[in-house]
Amino acid sequence: MASVEKASDEATYVNPKKFKSSNEEPKESKKYSVHESLKDLSKFQLKRVLNNNAQKKLLCVEGTFADHDGAAIVLLEKKAFVEEKLDEHLFTESSKLSKEFENDVYGNYNCFPSIEHNSIKTTIIHPAMEKHIAKFENQPIHIVEETPKLYEEITLPHLKKEQFSLQWVYNILEHKAEKERIVFEDPDPKTGFVLIPDLKWDGSLETLYLLAIPMLKGIKSIRDLDQSHLPLLKNIRDAGTKAISKKYSGFPASQLRIYFHYQPSFYHLHIHFTYLKYDAPGIFTEKAHLLSTVINNIELMGEYYSKATLSFVVKESETLFSKYQAHGVLSSQSVEKK
Amino acid sequence: MASVEKASDEATYVNPKKFKSSNEEPKESKKYSVHESLKDLSKFQLKRVLNNNAQKKLLCVEGTFADHDGAAIVLLEKKAFVEEKLDEHLFTESSKLSKEFENDVYGNYNCFPSIEHNSIKTTIIHPAMEKHIAKFENQPIHIVEETPKLYEEITLPHLKKEQFSLQWVYNILEHKAEKERIVFEDPDPKTGFVLIPDLKWDGSLETLYLLAIPMLKGIKSIRDLDQSHLPLLKNIRDAGTKAISKKYSGFPASQLRIYFHYQPSFYHLHIHFTYLKYDAPGIFTEKAHLLSTVINNIELMGEYYSKATLSFVVKESETLFSKYQAHGVLSSQSVEKK
Repeated sequence: MASVEKASDEATYVNPKKFKSSNEEPKESKKYSVHESLKDLSKFQLKRVLNNNAQKKLLCVEGTFADHDGAAIVLLEKKAFVEEKLDEHLFTESSKLSKEFENDVYGNYNCFPSIEHNSIKTTIIHPAMEKHIAKFENQPIHIVEETPKLYEEITLPHLKKEQFSLQWVYNILEHKAEKERIVFEDPDPKTGFVLIPDLKWDGSLETLYLLAIPMLKGIKSIRDLDQSHLPLLKNIRDAGTKAISKKYSGFPASQLRIYFHYQPSFYHLHIHFTYLKYDAPGIFTEKAHLLSTVINNIELMGEYYSKATLSFVVKESETLFSKYQAHGVLSSQSVEKK
Repeated sequence: MASVEKASDEATYVNPKKFKSSNEEPKESKKYSVHESLKDLSKFQLKRVLNNNAQKKLLCVEGTFADHDGAAIVLLEKKAFVEEKLDEHLFTESSKLSKEFENDVYGNYNCFPSIEHNSIKTTIIHPAMEKHIAKFENQPIHIVEETPKLYEEITLPHLKKEQFSLQWVYNILEHKAEKERIVFEDPDPKTGFVLIPDLKWDGSLETLYLLAIPMLKGIKSIRDLDQSHLPLLKNIRDAGTKAISKKYSGFPASQLRIYFHYQPSFYHLHIHFTYLKYDAPGIFTEKAHLLSTVINNIELMGEYYSKATLSFVVKESETLFSKYQAHGVLSSQSVEKK
């Protein structure tokens, strides 16, 4: 909590009037959400860059908002191009060109499209907790080979203690939030699920990204899966691909990547559906497990996921890294420190 | 050449005066370069999208310029964020926000920065040749769930017929080529292997990439692996990580991604060693299989790889796609053709 408190102090300093209001927080907590009134980025005060991914054109920064308490994370990501209406949105007189150089048939330019057709996808987390910040920070990473024994002794106690609130997931399942965003719903308590666009998705087919969230509570991750879950998993595969094909004009199942994350970012089982050509975050082999493989593994061996060694990646800044380090499984020797 | 000719005809039609000038091309070829006078993108007439990479935010299109002969390629790539002067360029009143939705501490927005600080890197190739176009053209890809039966009936006959020569691999193993590049060698005929830098590796630790190639011939891919290969696989894991640590100043095993490809690009078993933070090509879950997972799967079930359904990705332009299509397993219905 250290940085949240610190950020809070800074915000108070900038806007002393806020200090009084702070005492009324229990009554008017909504007031402190930056999301109520934010019109532009002028009030954002940069503390530091957490991550700058040049390939993905993604910038993640930590800071504060001048008139609000608490730390904030601003995640900016340039958008993929949308193929519809390129003639109206991009290939126009508004898209001015400034030549950098030319060589033979090749010319390099800067293109300045109109403001309205060149927006940046922006996610703001406020107030942000220490663990949000740790999540986005660029850090040395290590791969752990988690045996069932290490899961029981280290991972499981850790995640029981540290896990994020699942309230936002339950809000979706109970129609208390994002109801209008639901693409498909099967209310069966055992095999049912909600299919919803992922928060990161900008809506274009080129970056198609949906999440299937089972109605059934208590399945933390693939570690908990066994034969009893096959009907759920197969329903998600079949009804999920069908719903996507129906909603997105015949999007074929053979062009979908359907997978779990291990470790997941939250511990209510969920399945990612992304366009196969989209290099979505978290699709590397050390993190993503294809639904088809998971189903097949359980069919081959009902107890597969309680017996298997599952590898996953952990950042040095995460508590889980320290736990594995204390256990002698990992060391902080890293390429970054050379 | 068909598309180049067509594009040329269209340009002639739009500006008939140009037709006469065309005859003078050898004398005044400079005149026909679009790079001389281009001020904006309004004259670009889109023919088709060659490639749209949503992760890199890169769009490549083919078309013509209304007042010029010849095909053109326009390559647009959103720019990475520049960390200098973020306060002046991005966190300003100009950067208007439009809220999409909020849920708990998370808010999703569109941010509309000022035109001058949100330009797009643009490369224009004009006149473009057929080979430029082929270079940038994208292909639909599909995922196949290969059961053991499909492997026997389709994949195996195909790869027996089509596979590339393995002579270059045998040359390495027999010291007939690349001998001086070998990082480590264990000559045991059953469990031995050669460790060698991958051809793509530029030698910097940030992109570390080596290949382990077993001495043993006849193992085509992970499909052929069983209990008898465990000593080989464990030796590659242990001696491979040790050799890399020794050669590259203590490079830790926990920062290596060690994996197979399925399908591989050549059918003599080989294992990739890359730096965990390096987004090497072919590390997505639909293509890469961790050595640790492969060893564990065989330990759990000796016949795992002859019983498992293995998914892999195939391009529509590949012969293997046609084979699966003829078998009714895949169809050429694709997002790209919508």
